[in-house]
Amino acid sequence: MHRGLIVQKYGGSSVANVERIQKVAKRVADYRKKGYDLVVVVSALGDTTDELIELANQIDTEPSDREMDMLLSTGEQISVALLAMAIHKLGLEAISFTGAQVGIITDSSHTKARIIKINAGKIRQALRNGKIVIVAGFQGVTLEQDITTLGRGGSDLTAVALAKELAADECEIYTDVEGIYTTDPRIEPRAKKIKRITYDEMLEMASLGAQVMQARSIEVAKKFNVPIHVRSSFSDKSGTMIVKEARHMEEVVVSGITLNKSETKITVCDVPDRPGIAARLFKDISGSGVSVDMIVQNVSHIRQTDISFTVNKLDTNKAMKVVRRAARAMGTGDVLKDEGIARVSIVGVGMKSHSGVAAKMFEALASHKINIEMISTSDISISCIIEKKFAEAAVRSLHEKFGLGK
Amino acid sequence: MHRGLIVQKYGGSSVANVERIQKVAKRVADYRKKGYDLVVVVSALGDTTDELIELANQIDTEPSDREMDMLLSTGEQISVALLAMAIHKLGLEAISFTGAQVGIITDSSHTKARIIKINAGKIRQALRNGKIVIVAGFQGVTLEQDITTLGRGGSDLTAVALAKELAADECEIYTDVEGIYTTDPRIEPRAKKIKRITYDEMLEMASLGAQVMQARSIEVAKKFNVPIHVRSSFSDKSGTMIVKEARHMEEVVVSGITLNKSETKITVCDVPDRPGIAARLFKDISGSGVSVDMIVQNVSHIRQTDISFTVNKLDTNKAMKVVRRAARAMGTGDVLKDEGIARVSIVGVGMKSHSGVAAKMFEALASHKINIEMISTSDISISCIIEKKFAEAAVRSLHEKFGLGK
Repeated sequence: MHRGLIVQKYGGSSVANVERIQKVAKRVADYRKKGYDLVVVVSALGDTTDELIELANQIDTEPSDREMDMLLSTGEQISVALLAMAIHKLGLEAISFTGAQVGIITDSSHTKARIIKINAGKIRQALRNGKIVIVAGFQGVTLEQDITTLGRGGSDLTAVALAKELAADECEIYTDVEGIYTTDPRIEPRAKKIKRITYDEMLEMASLGAQVMQARSIEVAKKFNVPIHVRSSFSDKSGTMIVKEARHMEEVVVSGITLNKSETKITVCDVPDRPGIAARLFKDISGSGVSVDMIVQNVSHIRQTDISFTVNKLDTNKAMKVVRRAARAMGTGDVLKDEGIARVSIVGVGMKSHSGVAAKMFEALASHKINIEMISTSDISISCIIEKKFAEAAVRSLHEKFGLGK
Repeated sequence: MHRGLIVQKYGGSSVANVERIQKVAKRVADYRKKGYDLVVVVSALGDTTDELIELANQIDTEPSDREMDMLLSTGEQISVALLAMAIHKLGLEAISFTGAQVGIITDSSHTKARIIKINAGKIRQALRNGKIVIVAGFQGVTLEQDITTLGRGGSDLTAVALAKELAADECEIYTDVEGIYTTDPRIEPRAKKIKRITYDEMLEMASLGAQVMQARSIEVAKKFNVPIHVRSSFSDKSGTMIVKEARHMEEVVVSGITLNKSETKITVCDVPDRPGIAARLFKDISGSGVSVDMIVQNVSHIRQTDISFTVNKLDTNKAMKVVRRAARAMGTGDVLKDEGIARVSIVGVGMKSHSGVAAKMFEALASHKINIEMISTSDISISCIIEKKFAEAAVRSLHEKFGLGK
């Protein structure tokens, strides 16, 4: 009996060694025996990618992006071959493909290529021939046949894009956690697994620090309405469904709490309050390749203001250099950096239609005597920058305040 | 100044680690600076291939050939990317390609594919753009885009085939020895490096046990008259040239002595002397996938005979099973196996026109009281099967008898 097509993606920890590859094979075989067609996307074994990067860095700390893609793409190629062998061993038919072989065509932005289209004819044919199709994640190929990679977490994107292209009934993302949690269970043991979450919420959670799934892949899933099921490869429990509308009868206001401790706050003091000043500053920063995250500006009555923003802490020195130069040119005051900060955020589509959510958040922090240094809001999230030492306490207080442990 | 095109091939030991890869890059760069165009073929790093085979065998001792090729081809892909990076680091332009990318089209005999044609347009274009071209050895691709490998030593074939296709001025095979020797220097310290050797002699040497170069690649070099230079990647000394005609003024009768200790002798006793019996026997054996090497039969006056032949010792059990079955069906006598044998051979185009070479060989062995169990001859070689324990002594005695140490 034919029961539909499922795309499954297994991350590096799910295929870290031969034993785990055999477990994945067993799971795939079980699905097959139930009557599903299967396309399985696999990441590189465990730490393979990091080991290859280390090897390259021994030769050149700034290796060519094209050659880096040539190198890194081997990791997934090893995984797919081994998984196909493990499935054969269970007596089922499987065939492995590289990204190039299944026509995952990308632009030529090596190390962070974008998928242009997928020529899935080869996959469709293999499925028609009754085979389980194993596809190397994270990689594609340009029209000139150069191998590309899709950036960190790119295997998620491969899976979602294939699920869309093949109109799969579900896209399962297997990982080493059981799903998306209301917050990081290592910080708040009462964190609960979320059963259903919307693409938008998941996108906020991903970009705000939840590491489970790559943000770009969620964007694509949202755009094409691909149903995603994030679950553990070490258990049979169902995980978290990521869908368009997650709400049932009752409205949950806040879905989860995220924490990000990898940012630095930079403040430019006494900025003249003239049009074009902020534009100039952030144009210079983005020109240097540094991504800016949260930006806060308050215009004071004396026609001068402070502009604060956060950058990834790895970019701190680069950003400070550019900002200092720009500050001198614009005649502002001091440029300050603060590396002792954390960002804590609440995420939930429900908060759009509920007043008082922000107030409730600030109350929770205040009740623990946690000072808020910056505030930023979006449609479905509110973020506060606080002192890093209060980070975990803040997460726990918010988790409790919004009743997420229940 | 443009000085011509050289194809260089570096084996696994030449690129076993980052330091050696950097040395190869330096050598390539030196050639480039002298004005040569370069196509560089690289094998997998050191023991990578064996490690990947081990990984596959943990999953399945008889993995699918197609998936094995998918797996093993990653080894060379890693090498080419790293070598390209190392050349970039020296400030030169280089670009790496997989076998598939440079259009090395093969049949679909996975793990031992044969090259059908090479669509070298991509390489020619890269050369025109002034780039050093790095090509993954050992691999190709079918017209259906399945990745194939060319069998053990297949990188030699990649190099020779590319040299032919691109009409290179020379094909250099870099290895961990300084060239072809009159015999194995570990057995006979007085062994001498051979300056020039013919394709035919080299072919005999390769198939008789000299491990320096893959036999098929020499066949191809001979067919298309590709000049080959076998040399060491650890020294600047010139090595051995493999050419059509190696002789100068004086004729060297015997060029080298080879030894092969990896065979088993199988003897079928009391075989009825009827037409078709040998055909039947060897058809059954080849049908089982076992390659037979030396075959000797002597018809006796009583219309019965013994047939002896050798097989690779890894195939002993498989061969014995088939032969016993065939022997029963044909009504022969016992089937015996002897694993304690060695084959020692003398090789040289000169022997065709010189009588007494065989006699001289048998004399040398007799003078050391070494009994000869089987004899087989070709146009340019004579091989004797002897007891394994005399193998090294036989090599030394022949090396001296034919004056090769001088």
